[in-house]
Amino acid sequence: MKGTVYLVGAGPGAPDLLTLRAARVLRDADIVFYDALVHSDTLALAERAEQILVGKRCGRHSTAQRFINKRLVDAARGHRVVVRLKGGDPTLFGRAQEEIAALREANVPVEIIPGVTAALAAAAELGVSLTQRGLARSVALATPRAAEGAAPSGWLDAVLAADTAVLYMAARDAARVKAELLAHGLPASRPVAVVESASSPARKIFAGRLAELDRLAAQCADGPAVLLVGEVLAAAAREGLLPDLAAPAKPLAARRR
Amino acid sequence: MKGTVYLVGAGPGAPDLLTLRAARVLRDADIVFYDALVHSDTLALAERAEQILVGKRCGRHSTAQRFINKRLVDAARGHRVVVRLKGGDPTLFGRAQEEIAALREANVPVEIIPGVTAALAAAAELGVSLTQRGLARSVALATPRAAEGAAPSGWLDAVLAADTAVLYMAARDAARVKAELLAHGLPASRPVAVVESASSPARKIFAGRLAELDRLAAQCADGPAVLLVGEVLAAAAREGLLPDLAAPAKPLAARRR
Repeated sequence: MKGTVYLVGAGPGAPDLLTLRAARVLRDADIVFYDALVHSDTLALAERAEQILVGKRCGRHSTAQRFINKRLVDAARGHRVVVRLKGGDPTLFGRAQEEIAALREANVPVEIIPGVTAALAAAAELGVSLTQRGLARSVALATPRAAEGAAPSGWLDAVLAADTAVLYMAARDAARVKAELLAHGLPASRPVAVVESASSPARKIFAGRLAELDRLAAQCADGPAVLLVGEVLAAAAREGLLPDLAAPAKPLAARRR
Repeated sequence: MKGTVYLVGAGPGAPDLLTLRAARVLRDADIVFYDALVHSDTLALAERAEQILVGKRCGRHSTAQRFINKRLVDAARGHRVVVRLKGGDPTLFGRAQEEIAALREANVPVEIIPGVTAALAAAAELGVSLTQRGLARSVALATPRAAEGAAPSGWLDAVLAADTAVLYMAARDAARVKAELLAHGLPASRPVAVVESASSPARKIFAGRLAELDRLAAQCADGPAVLLVGEVLAAAAREGLLPDLAAPAKPLAARRR
């Protein structure tokens, strides 16, 4: 056993939202296994490395995961610095645990290099803080997607309970998300936003009310998108950022508990 | 009006967990207003800049916020590149909205540069993915802290509803957090971890069960800490990382909904 596998967060899309540590490890890398969403400028940092595309876009079949795990273990037997490069942060919706488990079982040292996750890049683009004093003290990061055969995601509970919610891999499920949130008592007027390809030049923002979430999400092209739900978005509206959202935010006292 | 104010996330502590973009803006900065928790190596990047400490550690009185807002507005009148450097990510528990609102009202352009937040750095240190297929599809980031006079935080709802929870600014409230979670039906055996000073050389990890959360948190020194709650921690335990946590994880099907 000679190598270490680094699970590296590539950040939300823009190559300069990579961390300095991730850039250094990429420069040192002998071999890089990367996801489809990683920017070519980020990959270019790994100029010495063999570069292997392994990631699937969401919605594709996932049987390849076991094969990726095996390739990582094999790579660590022949290389000193093995990088597994994932969009965003490796510990959020990145299937890191399956790779960590396989590597640990094979006695391969693993290090995780955290990254900027899409929710935070989206908030930066919107110019809105996900938490706000007196208005939002909790943020849910969730996805309605669940593996085939696995129990369904509890995203609904998490989103209903949090002051602010950011849903990953949910744009195509926007109609269902809207229907479930309305059916469980969220007001149709709750501010929402859809941010596609946050931090990239192709970035698009669609803001409005929960009642139109599906219509907003339908305007997305093929880029990765997050759905944001919460009164914090109204603050951005008051500052002229999201012109479709003008009503005042509801203070925490108006919540259920 | 000549300057732009950049709200920059300094990341969780380690200076190399800064983004490339943040490093570039710091190098360009004319003046930097920074929080107490920012690393000196990070500040050193701003070699041309006047450097002004403004951040308070959690628990101190917060009347200074209005004064910080005013200083940012004033600085943008006399400088081209003004940086407001915050620990972690600016849009999570960073009071960014108050600064954004003041700057927008004064017609000062604002840009947010997202950062790696403490929850993700802690997950990286623990070697555990906050989401895991079949086990955790939602993560709550919350704080029990609320501003004086403001409505109480709804952290409890958010933590109870999410599969995984990370609590910020909560180490001193660990006894209350434990009591509330137990009173609302979380099992005493739910895996927990306390990560202090994630990503810094002073980093400490304490892992155990919810029943001992207060005891674990009491071992923290004065560094910033996050509390993690969730079955995902048991996965790390199975891989030998958190020896105090050995029981198998409960699948999603065992949850309330």
